[in-house]
Amino acid sequence: MNQQELPANAFIDPSGFNKKSIEKFLSKALHRIISLISSSDTRSAIPEEINISTQTIPEESIGDEQLIDQLETILLSSMNPSHPGWIPHMDPPPTTASMISDFAAASVNNNMLSVEMSPAFSRLEQQVIHKICQLFNLGPNASGVLCSGGSLANLQALAVARNAKLKTQKSGIQTLSQKPVLFASEVAHTSIQKAAMVLGLGQDSVLAISVDSQSRMIVEELKTALKQARKEGKTPFCVIATAGTTTTGNIDPLEEIGQVSQKENLWYHVDAAYGGALAFSDTYRDKLTGISDADSITFNPQKWLYVAKTSAMVLFKNQDQLVENFSIGAPYMEEDEDLINLGEISLQGTRHADILKLWASFQHIGRKGFQQLIDESYHLTNFLHDKLKRVDCIQLASTPEMNIICFRGQPEWISSSAWDKWNKGLQEYILDKHGIFFSLPTYRNSKWLRTVILNPFVDKQTIKNINQGITSYIEETKKQT
Amino acid sequence: MNQQELPANAFIDPSGFNKKSIEKFLSKALHRIISLISSSDTRSAIPEEINISTQTIPEESIGDEQLIDQLETILLSSMNPSHPGWIPHMDPPPTTASMISDFAAASVNNNMLSVEMSPAFSRLEQQVIHKICQLFNLGPNASGVLCSGGSLANLQALAVARNAKLKTQKSGIQTLSQKPVLFASEVAHTSIQKAAMVLGLGQDSVLAISVDSQSRMIVEELKTALKQARKEGKTPFCVIATAGTTTTGNIDPLEEIGQVSQKENLWYHVDAAYGGALAFSDTYRDKLTGISDADSITFNPQKWLYVAKTSAMVLFKNQDQLVENFSIGAPYMEEDEDLINLGEISLQGTRHADILKLWASFQHIGRKGFQQLIDESYHLTNFLHDKLKRVDCIQLASTPEMNIICFRGQPEWISSSAWDKWNKGLQEYILDKHGIFFSLPTYRNSKWLRTVILNPFVDKQTIKNINQGITSYIEETKKQT
Repeated sequence: MNQQELPANAFIDPSGFNKKSIEKFLSKALHRIISLISSSDTRSAIPEEINISTQTIPEESIGDEQLIDQLETILLSSMNPSHPGWIPHMDPPPTTASMISDFAAASVNNNMLSVEMSPAFSRLEQQVIHKICQLFNLGPNASGVLCSGGSLANLQALAVARNAKLKTQKSGIQTLSQKPVLFASEVAHTSIQKAAMVLGLGQDSVLAISVDSQSRMIVEELKTALKQARKEGKTPFCVIATAGTTTTGNIDPLEEIGQVSQKENLWYHVDAAYGGALAFSDTYRDKLTGISDADSITFNPQKWLYVAKTSAMVLFKNQDQLVENFSIGAPYMEEDEDLINLGEISLQGTRHADILKLWASFQHIGRKGFQQLIDESYHLTNFLHDKLKRVDCIQLASTPEMNIICFRGQPEWISSSAWDKWNKGLQEYILDKHGIFFSLPTYRNSKWLRTVILNPFVDKQTIKNINQGITSYIEETKKQT
Repeated sequence: MNQQELPANAFIDPSGFNKKSIEKFLSKALHRIISLISSSDTRSAIPEEINISTQTIPEESIGDEQLIDQLETILLSSMNPSHPGWIPHMDPPPTTASMISDFAAASVNNNMLSVEMSPAFSRLEQQVIHKICQLFNLGPNASGVLCSGGSLANLQALAVARNAKLKTQKSGIQTLSQKPVLFASEVAHTSIQKAAMVLGLGQDSVLAISVDSQSRMIVEELKTALKQARKEGKTPFCVIATAGTTTTGNIDPLEEIGQVSQKENLWYHVDAAYGGALAFSDTYRDKLTGISDADSITFNPQKWLYVAKTSAMVLFKNQDQLVENFSIGAPYMEEDEDLINLGEISLQGTRHADILKLWASFQHIGRKGFQQLIDESYHLTNFLHDKLKRVDCIQLASTPEMNIICFRGQPEWISSSAWDKWNKGLQEYILDKHGIFFSLPTYRNSKWLRTVILNPFVDKQTIKNINQGITSYIEETKKQT
């Protein structure tokens, strides 16, 4: 093409014409980004100021140099998860392999829509998915697809559940004589409600089951709710258990819920977006006992396996269930005898090769490396838990089962109506004095502090600093009253 | 953490401890990838062989060097869109800015779920979305979100349409007294059917409207179908027009369909996944006249704007429609007074910062650069079209309206039942003799050759080679009979 308006490095020339100049441009950008991440500890865990260009679509190119400058400014205005005090969310610093893999995947820009459009990545995705199905003991017929995030994984699982149990694929829900309902604990992720809404079941089709003091679904309550729903003329079709609740990281009783599902002929979905990572640790895998009974599983390596977002998947015990109850052919795609076009069994059509960063992270870190990351985060979580238990006015939302602790102060020397404010003050104090950043979720109608120890650069000293910070804040606020 | 099992470069140390070693590792990987793309023309447009490791999750790290080697092998086993003969699909070679932006976005691994988790990217996404809404003349209340692919954009648009028109958000579809139906041309993208299935409307809720010889919806047929549906006791709620059909790149009569929608009080969605790019060209923008009447638009910069996948979005004329008819709050997220948490108005929750590569491509190429890419591809398409028209046995599927030509040979010297095979032979011949790769879609029950001139390294010589190849193939196959 006639390219006079394009900057010299707009594209990489396939005959090497601009190779030197591309190398100069990209090497410079690479070094600037590495320098920035390698000095994360000199900045705060959260950006000190947010500077982003207000220029959206300029008429002319701003050039290589200015682009690099502006990229740097945007990164400096972003959350800084590599900071050793970053422990607020299920959002880790990324594996190095993820970073270079996203660059590599972009460089060939293949499309997960079909085998023809991504011959290597489509095969790689199926191989890796099958291996992960084995880790969950899903049996020989299991399969699945990667999804761009856990909300989509839950949505697709429930779409297949609905179609499998209620035969809604062709003629929809409107013709059903009874209201379909599904069951999940009251602390299940909001993506379940979103999925029910999207699926045309309506938000009111999600019946919330009470949890015990450990935020785990009470199985007797599930049984009662099932009976009640049938009595009211509704059609239960699915139960969802959570392995790793969003706020407290607790695990529903997977085996017992699976038994109820089987007895009642319901689809059994396990949302293990967070907790699925435990399958990678010989030490903690047992916490997932019962997950192998699931008809479908959501699992997000983008959380506890440190793979850059997005890395998420939905798995099915029986690939035929997925194909029969979900797929719609695309006549414009070439067919291959043995391999399935992933766009036909996925919510998404065109899709980025997220598989590359997952696969590369597995190669670069190894299963044992991931086990160590998981086991160490338990170790540090227990260390912090022991310390928090000894602080009088600190209340835990639940006993930690993972690397998440959700707690709040309920200082008896101030009115309980001021506790939310006190806890927000504690969040700010620890960030200010120790550079450690907690999140501040609302849970059971109150503000809590929440830490997710999902950072390889957190150590015992970090925990000691947290403890120190809490103690000092208590003393200081006590004095003020 | 205690990191003895982890390789030294598993993560970038925030205090610079492994900076030198990370630079060595990543620079080496970068140079290998640049060398590979810079020599794309020395390989075929499609991989000569597919070699991928069968190792999925090793116990131990394979190390930096082996990882780079294996990444290279996978890239060599992938489709090679930078090859100057790559013109089969709506999958372009990526902008250089996309590549480095995906690396940069992964490096900070922020989450588009909420403003707190991506303070810069969330703001940037809204700014860019608002600017693109202006390009489509959607008016002052328009807004939207990026989605990981066009299928999700269509799905979200139809979810909002359904909820807005039928009030299905809370109590679902089962309680409706009449079957809801929507209308799209018979050549609309299959993601519309997928969306109808997922939304609980059922595949049979999509009523296909016939197209004319130019693959454009016949508006009179739409009117007839609307009347018929109402007569049958169904509830029409939505009409979908396509601006850039998948196989032939044609544009439905946007204005007329919009007028019907308005008169009949239907939601008007325009799937401009492909054609939306024309808004960036002063020369061709007029082809989208009428798009400003849409209630929602799907637009994918990952196609004709050369941004690496995924880069797609759904836009709404009225942000309030989106918020009221879609959003579900997430109590674990911090609230900000002015800014909306994108996870609350998106199908997705956790989401990669796709905005960075879109924004960076705009900065690096500029609007004029994109106009040139678009205008030049028209120029070359017309050049090819002129040549094809002169070849006796070549039949065009439609008159090109974009940079897509879909054609097939119908050589009268062989039986029409052998034409599919003849055209498959032509695809192979042109790949073999000239290194140029077409796709071979099924359309109107036959095999066609399809070219999408979506490659800045295609020039007049490429077109001449195509013409030469077709002519020689005709002569050779004629001789054989």
